[in-house]
Amino acid sequence: MKIGFVGLGSMGAAIARNLIDAGHDVQVFNRSPARAEPLREAGASIASSPAQAALGADVVFTMVADDAAHAAVTFGEAGIATTLKPGALHISMSTISVATAQDHAAKYREACLAFVSAPVFGRPDAAAARKLFIMAAGADEHLKVAVPLLETLGQSVGIVGEDPSQANLVKLIGNFMLSVIIETLGEACAVAGKAGIDPMRLVELLTSANFNAPPYKIYGPLIASQQFQPPGFSLPLGQKDNRLMLAAAEALGVPLPLASLVHDRFLTLRSQGLGAEHDWSAVALCALSDAGLSKAFHGS
Amino acid sequence: MKIGFVGLGSMGAAIARNLIDAGHDVQVFNRSPARAEPLREAGASIASSPAQAALGADVVFTMVADDAAHAAVTFGEAGIATTLKPGALHISMSTISVATAQDHAAKYREACLAFVSAPVFGRPDAAAARKLFIMAAGADEHLKVAVPLLETLGQSVGIVGEDPSQANLVKLIGNFMLSVIIETLGEACAVAGKAGIDPMRLVELLTSANFNAPPYKIYGPLIASQQFQPPGFSLPLGQKDNRLMLAAAEALGVPLPLASLVHDRFLTLRSQGLGAEHDWSAVALCALSDAGLSKAFHGS
Amino acid sequence: MKIGFVGLGSMGAAIARNLIDAGHDVQVFNRSPARAEPLREAGASIASSPAQAALGADVVFTMVADDAAHAAVTFGEAGIATTLKPGALHISMSTISVATAQDHAAKYREACLAFVSAPVFGRPDAAAARKLFIMAAGADEHLKVAVPLLETLGQSVGIVGEDPSQANLVKLIGNFMLSVIIETLGEACAVAGKAGIDPMRLVELLTSANFNAPPYKIYGPLIASQQFQPPGFSLPLGQKDNRLMLAAAEALGVPLPLASLVHDRFLTLRSQGLGAEHDWSAVALCALSDAGLSKAFHGS
Amino acid sequence: MKIGFVGLGSMGAAIARNLIDAGHDVQVFNRSPARAEPLREAGASIASSPAQAALGADVVFTMVADDAAHAAVTFGEAGIATTLKPGALHISMSTISVATAQDHAAKYREACLAFVSAPVFGRPDAAAARKLFIMAAGADEHLKVAVPLLETLGQSVGIVGEDPSQANLVKLIGNFMLSVIIETLGEACAVAGKAGIDPMRLVELLTSANFNAPPYKIYGPLIASQQFQPPGFSLPLGQKDNRLMLAAAEALGVPLPLASLVHDRFLTLRSQGLGAEHDWSAVALCALSDAGLSKAFHGS
Repeated sequence: MKIGFVGLGSMGAAIARNLIDAGHDVQVFNRSPARAEPLREAGASIASSPAQAALGADVVFTMVADDAAHAAVTFGEAGIATTLKPGALHISMSTISVATAQDHAAKYREACLAFVSAPVFGRPDAAAARKLFIMAAGADEHLKVAVPLLETLGQSVGIVGEDPSQANLVKLIGNFMLSVIIETLGEACAVAGKAGIDPMRLVELLTSANFNAPPYKIYGPLIASQQFQPPGFSLPLGQKDNRLMLAAAEALGVPLPLASLVHDRFLTLRSQGLGAEHDWSAVALCALSDAGLSKAFHGS
Repeated sequence: MKIGFVGLGSMGAAIARNLIDAGHDVQVFNRSPARAEPLREAGASIASSPAQAALGADVVFTMVADDAAHAAVTFGEAGIATTLKPGALHISMSTISVATAQDHAAKYREACLAFVSAPVFGRPDAAAARKLFIMAAGADEHLKVAVPLLETLGQSVGIVGEDPSQANLVKLIGNFMLSVIIETLGEACAVAGKAGIDPMRLVELLTSANFNAPPYKIYGPLIASQQFQPPGFSLPLGQKDNRLMLAAAEALGVPLPLASLVHDRFLTLRSQGLGAEHDWSAVALCALSDAGLSKAFHGS
Repeated sequence: MKIGFVGLGSMGAAIARNLIDAGHDVQVFNRSPARAEPLREAGASIASSPAQAALGADVVFTMVADDAAHAAVTFGEAGIATTLKPGALHISMSTISVATAQDHAAKYREACLAFVSAPVFGRPDAAAARKLFIMAAGADEHLKVAVPLLETLGQSVGIVGEDPSQANLVKLIGNFMLSVIIETLGEACAVAGKAGIDPMRLVELLTSANFNAPPYKIYGPLIASQQFQPPGFSLPLGQKDNRLMLAAAEALGVPLPLASLVHDRFLTLRSQGLGAEHDWSAVALCALSDAGLSKAFHGS
Repeated sequence: MKIGFVGLGSMGAAIARNLIDAGHDVQVFNRSPARAEPLREAGASIASSPAQAALGADVVFTMVADDAAHAAVTFGEAGIATTLKPGALHISMSTISVATAQDHAAKYREACLAFVSAPVFGRPDAAAARKLFIMAAGADEHLKVAVPLLETLGQSVGIVGEDPSQANLVKLIGNFMLSVIIETLGEACAVAGKAGIDPMRLVELLTSANFNAPPYKIYGPLIASQQFQPPGFSLPLGQKDNRLMLAAAEALGVPLPLASLVHDRFLTLRSQGLGAEHDWSAVALCALSDAGLSKAFHGS
């Protein structure tokens, strides 16, 4: 299949490589071209713009950092929408806002272009290992094309519904739930630590019992050992998703006290000077620090 | 082995039966004798007091509702401590406060009696199926006796440490984490519901992805369908554990904003008239109700 | 003095009338012309656009509902900026965002137009009685003109600084503090009510003691008696100001847990169907309702 | 009038002196006798126990630090209740729990002794200047004796009702409301500080406008200047009252999210090492510190 791929961050690069390895003819584009080099070596051709990446493609993937980037690569001057051929499909894997996804869907519908939103759960190593959990939404006829392709990229594809933006909402809900797990582990490790129980031992006990899902296993040891660098998913990106969740919830009229708490944690961390060099699990630092246990800020 | 068993609530009865089925000689006691009948039929002998249940036993288990009951069956007039023979072991599976466990441990130490604290994660059906996750703490020589026995009652036994009360703290931390999952699912289902995504579908998508731990699988469908009766673990018991967690954290000097939030949820529910006939997952009702989605209170 | 006045809501109309009564030559504009009629009878001339209201004026006041209205009457096609004469002064009394005030200030500076931001504390009856508390910020030379005029409209004028947007920030901080008083009174009345102390008696006791500031005296009786209609300051406007405060704080990197709590209260109320016909002090209903005391929602 | 006075902390000593200055015959007792010396010089006689202070007295005042002290001086071995003559009146000005006041009232009723609870708002300087705000509750016949006396000690006496413990609840509610003002000022000063507005200027502007009640005027400058030493009302005493409020609210079934937030602030401060040498207004440090503005902890 002829595939365009736009956005070669650590997630996008891993996914694009899997597409190449699966034998597809892949044209990649990234704003900073250096990141495209390894993929050229792996067999991709390099496009000079999103429009060129989409030219002649059966499917175009996008995996970019935020709403602005998504709008630019899609509807900008040399954007995908300028060259996408009738019948071709745009699959957006980016974590973008519900509003932006709705806007995208409406514009494509009007232009008779095909759009599936398919954001993913998983860190770069999971992307490389085809272990992503993918949430997909779009019209049935578009999902028919997208799902078989997505199934080669992850360990499961959940069909959310016909409205592409609903997949984005589910993705935001999932990230919200992850952020609460991080905060929970911070508070739990703070209690353990002050009671003389090694937080790492606590995490082992809990993840060997009923808290045996990946998020507890991944974030538990990071938080217990206060290892927040290098970032798997950076603090500012986590903060962005928290904002998108709160904005979506506000538009729907849903109070989310847990998301508000995490929102304040992000602001606290940024005000202490933490940023893109930290993983978002550093949210747990606040609870640890408030309990007098943090090595990273609060008087250390 | 000759075993005493005190406390035949739905958890205790299931565990006692497993001990009988394993061939042990079990003497049971329950405050209201009717609950002992089915166990007599299964082969247990009925004791007329905790003291009598402990008489001659190698190991005595207790599984009672709260600190007061624990103190009464252990140190009351006809309590276990009045007859427990030297060298015999008391295993407490109850969820009691850290302070009560510390007090118990100190008194037993002074009296040269053996004590292991072994609270459990799991609902009555898990107890019956020997699928409990058990946290055990106590002196090495006592754990040597307790652990092989506990391993026949659950799917895993985690060794917390030498101080029995630390197992109780880990149990309270675990229940705290469960209560946050419940609140999280309430908020997540509220967002989904108002966005036109069936909350049950949301739960399926998430538990088929990375939120695949038992708490999400157990509580997710209950919350999505707002099925809070009958109780697997009752609202007042959940509220009690929340109080114990906050008390332990306060004694340690650890702020737990998540536990404070859940604390307020419990008070709200009780003030709307919900009680022992509801499962503690009804905590999720607050988020659903605040979003205008609850079938159970707030104007319906 | 020749004065333009744009925005004749209940606050604007009261202020405009005071300017007329003070002998100024006032040209008024309101989007819906009916509200201008009573002022015509009081001596004002009616302008057909903001631009016409500003034409030839020495000072133009604006008192509009939100950022969009402020931008429209100022920079729209027939906006004030199109006719404001060099040397004339624009005094904005609206509660608008810090960002909009900064944008306005920058554009006027570029166009060599004079701008003072002068938002007010006080309800319509206070505006009529010239009892407003006014916060003013702008360049010294502009304040020299504005302050004497403002002093005739309120009981005090506080000079915030040279940057007009700082007056808007102080206004948002003040409204934030009022919203917390409302929430506090809701929680306090809930405790009193359930303890058998008449909430109205509680309010009398507290406001006769050290809680003797206007907000406690004004909102206390409303909340104690659960009288949230008609609105003095409507629920949606209060919610808007809460959003503006949170946005300003986020831009500055300041977590505001109290504002986040109030934010969730607003969403809860809106989801129960409360709106513009309610005063923003209805925020207190949430605490009363959670305690089982509300007459207005939650099962009544 | 012959008066006993038990408890000569900074509040009690100031009140006792005012009673001496008013010409009463005052017998004082304090656990550490040194604090009684200045009062002896002012004309008091020194009692060797609470019982002796109450011996022959028409009225006995108590002003002690907490529930335990209150119980000891009243019902202990040499407590007031052992010597209080029939017809004599015990006026408790201490901030004690609702439960302790209820217990006291019940025991006195049974013993036909007279009890009025009369806790106060105001710091030591207000006590000395007879500027206290006093909340009084008790049987009418007892209030008839108490109120004229109390009126000489403060600027107002509010009658709460017949149940003495209700005065204690109102006092706890008042302190709860003060604690929220402190938190509010912390958040407000954090916003101002990061926006380049001097927090002290902010406080001046607000207290010159509608936030002109004593708490804003007293705590505002302390918080704006981060002056939390020496204590007027110490951090641990404030924390104790927060606990009493939460306990009373929990018993009544009332969630108090604001009190829960302040509860967590106290724990955070104690975990950073702050204690009795700090004023409770240090609660505001948390908001300032989270915003990166505190001089006192968090890495500075």
